[in-house]
Amino acid sequence: MNPAYARLKARFARIATLGEAQAMLGWDASAMMPPGGGAARGEQLATLAGLAHEMLTAPEVAADLADATTSGDWDDANLSLMRRGHARAVALPTSLVEASARANSACEKVWRGAKAQSDFSAVRPWLEEVVRLQRETAAALAAASGLSPYDALMEGYQRGVTAAEVEPVFTAYEAFLREALPQVEERQARGPAAMPLPGPFPVAAQRALCRRLSEGAGLDYSHARLDESLHPFCGGTPTDIRITTFYSEAEVAKALLGVLHETGHALYERGLPEAWARQPVGEAAGMAAHESQSLIVEMQACRGDAFLSFLGPQLLAAFGGDPAPYAPANLGRLWRHVSRGFIRVDADEITYPAHIILRFRLEQALISGQLAVAELPGAWNEGFARLLGVRPPDDARGCLQDIHWHDGAFGYFPSYTLGAMAAAQLMKAARAAVPGLDAALARGEMLPLVGWLRANVHGQGSRLGFQDLLRHATGKSLDPSDFMTHLRQRYLQ
Amino acid sequence: MNPAYARLKARFARIATLGEAQAMLGWDASAMMPPGGGAARGEQLATLAGLAHEMLTAPEVAADLADATTSGDWDDANLSLMRRGHARAVALPTSLVEASARANSACEKVWRGAKAQSDFSAVRPWLEEVVRLQRETAAALAAASGLSPYDALMEGYQRGVTAAEVEPVFTAYEAFLREALPQVEERQARGPAAMPLPGPFPVAAQRALCRRLSEGAGLDYSHARLDESLHPFCGGTPTDIRITTFYSEAEVAKALLGVLHETGHALYERGLPEAWARQPVGEAAGMAAHESQSLIVEMQACRGDAFLSFLGPQLLAAFGGDPAPYAPANLGRLWRHVSRGFIRVDADEITYPAHIILRFRLEQALISGQLAVAELPGAWNEGFARLLGVRPPDDARGCLQDIHWHDGAFGYFPSYTLGAMAAAQLMKAARAAVPGLDAALARGEMLPLVGWLRANVHGQGSRLGFQDLLRHATGKSLDPSDFMTHLRQRYLQ
Repeated sequence: MNPAYARLKARFARIATLGEAQAMLGWDASAMMPPGGGAARGEQLATLAGLAHEMLTAPEVAADLADATTSGDWDDANLSLMRRGHARAVALPTSLVEASARANSACEKVWRGAKAQSDFSAVRPWLEEVVRLQRETAAALAAASGLSPYDALMEGYQRGVTAAEVEPVFTAYEAFLREALPQVEERQARGPAAMPLPGPFPVAAQRALCRRLSEGAGLDYSHARLDESLHPFCGGTPTDIRITTFYSEAEVAKALLGVLHETGHALYERGLPEAWARQPVGEAAGMAAHESQSLIVEMQACRGDAFLSFLGPQLLAAFGGDPAPYAPANLGRLWRHVSRGFIRVDADEITYPAHIILRFRLEQALISGQLAVAELPGAWNEGFARLLGVRPPDDARGCLQDIHWHDGAFGYFPSYTLGAMAAAQLMKAARAAVPGLDAALARGEMLPLVGWLRANVHGQGSRLGFQDLLRHATGKSLDPSDFMTHLRQRYLQ
Repeated sequence: MNPAYARLKARFARIATLGEAQAMLGWDASAMMPPGGGAARGEQLATLAGLAHEMLTAPEVAADLADATTSGDWDDANLSLMRRGHARAVALPTSLVEASARANSACEKVWRGAKAQSDFSAVRPWLEEVVRLQRETAAALAAASGLSPYDALMEGYQRGVTAAEVEPVFTAYEAFLREALPQVEERQARGPAAMPLPGPFPVAAQRALCRRLSEGAGLDYSHARLDESLHPFCGGTPTDIRITTFYSEAEVAKALLGVLHETGHALYERGLPEAWARQPVGEAAGMAAHESQSLIVEMQACRGDAFLSFLGPQLLAAFGGDPAPYAPANLGRLWRHVSRGFIRVDADEITYPAHIILRFRLEQALISGQLAVAELPGAWNEGFARLLGVRPPDDARGCLQDIHWHDGAFGYFPSYTLGAMAAAQLMKAARAAVPGLDAALARGEMLPLVGWLRANVHGQGSRLGFQDLLRHATGKSLDPSDFMTHLRQRYLQ
């Protein structure tokens, strides 16, 4: 191996190992840490991040990157990801990184109060500062990468797809929504009302069921834990995955479907190529790719008729009571109910993309400067009404609902819908490649699907960007028609 | 502030912050981690240790230490501890540190099997290598510190006390033991037999009781957690303490007294001087000092008559059944039973020091070369018989019982008994200074004791070495007579 490249591999492995420590400490902060540990934890995470940044931007790295040569797909991709990571890190002056971290943290704190009061004016000056620094960041990253400023931000979350590629996909979806949403609503209104599950759902029984179902989906608990946190997430490292959920005795769907969602993320991390562990090319391909894996498990597989026919009896056995609401058809009516709500995280899979399309357009306008922060509430409410025909009654249910922008995350939102669409596209390809996939789901067997994902997505690591990964796995780049077909089949047939 | 000293403070704070990350990851490995995470965790901990070592031994440190000046007790002590830490770190060549780590880890693995088979010959060559490298380490540390080789190893666990100071203390205890142990046994044989507690003890009830009692002892759970691990310990950081225990439905004493023991350690960490957090002088004073704090809570306070009179009714309320065994006098008979056992960790407080005295003498002989590893089993059994009058029937109950030497820890053992003796000495001083201390314990109130410890021990950080800390808190250096008086009062009056 070229000695410069060998040195780089050792250095990036060390940086990744620091990242693993950060991941574990982050999990602990959300799932375990007593409140009094917060200040020290902040210091620990900042110190590790600082060390990793120093190791990535040390002068030797530029020298080794100049001298490094590779041969072979994986090593070529790995070196190119090293170059990209280094270029992004050195593009940003430390003063800008620190100013952003401070501004994001300050804005995020003020936002919590502003959201509770539905008072946009309270957070406006803080958000203005966040946006100002994000514009600066975008410009610096754009100059270093040759991408547009917004694409340069988006690349930080998902490599290998541009706003110019996303825009026509979203436009096509808007047209679909205008036509299909009223039909779905009309059909839903005509059908029987969903019967609520009786409850209560003892937490111990939910926990056992969630664990069993995630195990059934392929999560190996000798390399994983399931715990509780206010906001569910998948953290940890590929050999030590930590998923969390939040239980309520009054309701079972949130924890159950949430755990299946996080299991999709977990299976991706577990399935990353071991031979490239701790190398850039061994990481997951990005946030949209990650979301495609949680959604293919949760939305495509687990909320589908086949799996619900397996799940109904499981739920009945776990919680007892009247069996009628546990009928698969009723579970479908409960868990695939469509409505024009204001809150993204509560949205069904048909209207969810509208929430994302709105944010995608607004954040591009904020970063380009076409939209001033002061104009955001108006633009939000107008855009929302245009997409879904209803107007948010206040900013808490409008532009204040999400943490992302108030914490400096611009370019992230498209990942949700790119992931949902990719999940449908991958599911179609998996069905074509794996005979009996739905029959297996009806028996609660996820492994035929997961096996295909291991080979075609998980095992690819970061070798391919988003569009290339889809081409590799499905023979085509992102094509919203698979998602629309899925929705028509599920909601209109 | 002198700029060199200011730079050193910043550097040592960063090193300490890495140490905090290691502490949390270490706790997680014992209390939370799925088995499959072990390999990655080893890498994470090694990487953090390597970075901390690099930061401590960087050339700038020597330059800054040469230029640094301080004024004031605390800063003087802090700088001197920086010098000591740096001198110890640079004294050891990396090759020796790595060879030791490898030899310790290999020996420790073989030892597990050898202990299970009671086969010393299986581990002998591995232990010989460990001892050889420990001799080298001791010589290097001695050359850098001016201490004797064994004292230089002991300093790594407890600063401010030498083998020459320990030896007469242990000799005095041997004489006490020869006289007092038969008397105690005779008195115990004459008295009523202890009634066992009925049980079973549901784990949930044990957990709740352990938490309540540790809270009552002053542990603030907004800065702490209580979890479970195979080997109980106190880990974490001063603002985020993690104590663990191990529950068995068949028995309550181990978990309960174990949690109170760890609570003593936890209160020490919590009570360290906040103004010196992340500086060497802000750390605990050493392992003997730490053990004095766990034992003053567990042995001096909680196993004493006053606290048992509070604890009995608590246990009865928690577990119910026949009240007779919960009578304080019976708890005393159960939990202060004296016997000449072979296993250190099961020993009572009278015979425990004999286990330590044996190890203290043998490890000095191993390090000096007077004793060959091959001669260890014989020397152990002979020494044990001389001290306690009984001969271990096999090496599993002899020189194979402890992990310490097989993991490269030489110079650690004295800390246990120095801690037990210091606990008695501190308790006597606390009783003299705090009126009503025992009356408070009889009401389950530990705070009068803990308040005195905060002021006189915890809040002192590492400003003073072991002997100076005792002088500061009790007016005299280590004096075994307070411990012997305590034992006479508890077991012979």
